[in-house]
Amino acid sequence: MLDINHAIESLDWGKEPEGLYAPIAYALASGGKRIRPTLALIASEMFGGKEEEVLPAALALEVFHNFTLLHDDVMDRASVRRGRPTVHVQWDDNTAILSGDQMLIEAYKLIAKVPSDKVQRTLEMFNEMATGICEGQQYDVDFERRDDVRIEEYMKMIELKTSVLLANALRTGGYIAGANEAQQEALYQYGLHIGLAFQIQDDILDVYGDPKTFGKAIGGDICCNKKTFLLLTALHTADATSQAELNEWLRISDRNEEKIAAVTAIYDRLGVRKAGEQAMEEHTSFALQQLNQLPQNQATDRLRALAEKLATRNK
Amino acid sequence: MLDINHAIESLDWGKEPEGLYAPIAYALASGGKRIRPTLALIASEMFGGKEEEVLPAALALEVFHNFTLLHDDVMDRASVRRGRPTVHVQWDDNTAILSGDQMLIEAYKLIAKVPSDKVQRTLEMFNEMATGICEGQQYDVDFERRDDVRIEEYMKMIELKTSVLLANALRTGGYIAGANEAQQEALYQYGLHIGLAFQIQDDILDVYGDPKTFGKAIGGDICCNKKTFLLLTALHTADATSQAELNEWLRISDRNEEKIAAVTAIYDRLGVRKAGEQAMEEHTSFALQQLNQLPQNQATDRLRALAEKLATRNK
Repeated sequence: MLDINHAIESLDWGKEPEGLYAPIAYALASGGKRIRPTLALIASEMFGGKEEEVLPAALALEVFHNFTLLHDDVMDRASVRRGRPTVHVQWDDNTAILSGDQMLIEAYKLIAKVPSDKVQRTLEMFNEMATGICEGQQYDVDFERRDDVRIEEYMKMIELKTSVLLANALRTGGYIAGANEAQQEALYQYGLHIGLAFQIQDDILDVYGDPKTFGKAIGGDICCNKKTFLLLTALHTADATSQAELNEWLRISDRNEEKIAAVTAIYDRLGVRKAGEQAMEEHTSFALQQLNQLPQNQATDRLRALAEKLATRNK
Repeated sequence: MLDINHAIESLDWGKEPEGLYAPIAYALASGGKRIRPTLALIASEMFGGKEEEVLPAALALEVFHNFTLLHDDVMDRASVRRGRPTVHVQWDDNTAILSGDQMLIEAYKLIAKVPSDKVQRTLEMFNEMATGICEGQQYDVDFERRDDVRIEEYMKMIELKTSVLLANALRTGGYIAGANEAQQEALYQYGLHIGLAFQIQDDILDVYGDPKTFGKAIGGDICCNKKTFLLLTALHTADATSQAELNEWLRISDRNEEKIAAVTAIYDRLGVRKAGEQAMEEHTSFALQQLNQLPQNQATDRLRALAEKLATRNK
């Protein structure tokens, strides 16, 4: 399979004005796993598609993903991304806004480059995905201010914010390579559910991960009262005593070590880790079932291995 | 011709999350001249196009224009737009960023709705325009920090920032209605040049307009040292004495009334108003010439009248 990093480096941005384009190159050069274009290429390969036909859409998804990170980092006041200063720190907020806008436009320029008879549908799917991600981001913001978020709402939010991009990468790759509608839907559902499993696993690892392999400090979500699968499950399943104890800790922000230990103990008592692992396994299993409806070849095997790897990852 | 305000009100946004969509409805309900969709519809009418075929693209241009205003207002810290608080004031910066992003996506959703065989080219033209506008905005920011801006650079900046949107509205309307390439180009050039004439007239009115009809205070550009056609012409044509005098005033920011009077006197002495009027007339005349290459009908007459009205406007 072709080298995605190389393809991204070869993208033909404008040169001038440098203040607009340099931050785009900076944001895209910072690496990341390139999982979205990879999924599009695997889906295309599954149907014997031509790499050069799907590549513009695959790259559009990666450019779009990095656009969302750029604007999200402004909104979240995040100062570091992949080990480097974020664009709004390296330059300023206005640069991050405007260069981000241009990145979104560059993604659409790539969409215009898929085979002519596939442009309209690819564009429609891309728009649907992009709308979902903006909606997911807004729900995430809304949830921070609410204390009555239901688990189903949380699942819907992470589906929109994370999963639809993976799902659409697979669907688009399949579509351009000639997958029929049922096959596109199976690819889409596979992507949705590995995304959900991934996000739940992320919530679990933040509390139960091994600090040596996880790569960031354990308990960050607990410290900042982040509404995760674990916290929402705990709040909704706890008896009156545990609920009161949990709510007490949610009001405390200056005793982090103690808070992490205490909330984790409540989680242990309520068995929310197990509930999370079960939900994760259900989503993984549903994702794997989708693959049975697709052509069986090396590409399908790669998606199967990916789902299994995500389900057992510890970092 | 159909009621554009009504068509905009009828646009089918999402409802939830309200925090994402309410600011979009607010921004689009605030009126404005709707000049861009009007130009697209006139160009379509010139070629006997069907209104329903061009309408999605016409509305996309209006939505896009309002997206740029939303993000520009954040970047410029503008607090009032069309007599109402701007979105980032009414809500907050993050809302303006995210709802602005969604507006850009909504514009692309409308582009996906033009007749299927016209989607790819319409999308390409839209992307080219959107890129030009981001580049123009960046040049505008860059120019604020430079004191060696040449008039040609200024003209290129206003062409990108203002004219390409008008030009593309006309070209797109013509294209969808079946104009050939030479006709599309004539429409585009007409749009570019009425845009340039409009902007130069804006610079002139800011200094020489009648406060009663102009609608805003006279001399605003002079007070903040805005690099306008008049200031750049003055700086580039002044003798050493006038140049020294002008540069002295550019350093002064606390004596506005006196500064306006003094700089206007320098402008009078150097004849920059006349230079501006001449440039404006040249662009208007060039725009009118383009119309001779197009079918002659009511639509062409409307564009002719529009160019003449812009050239003689006093507000």
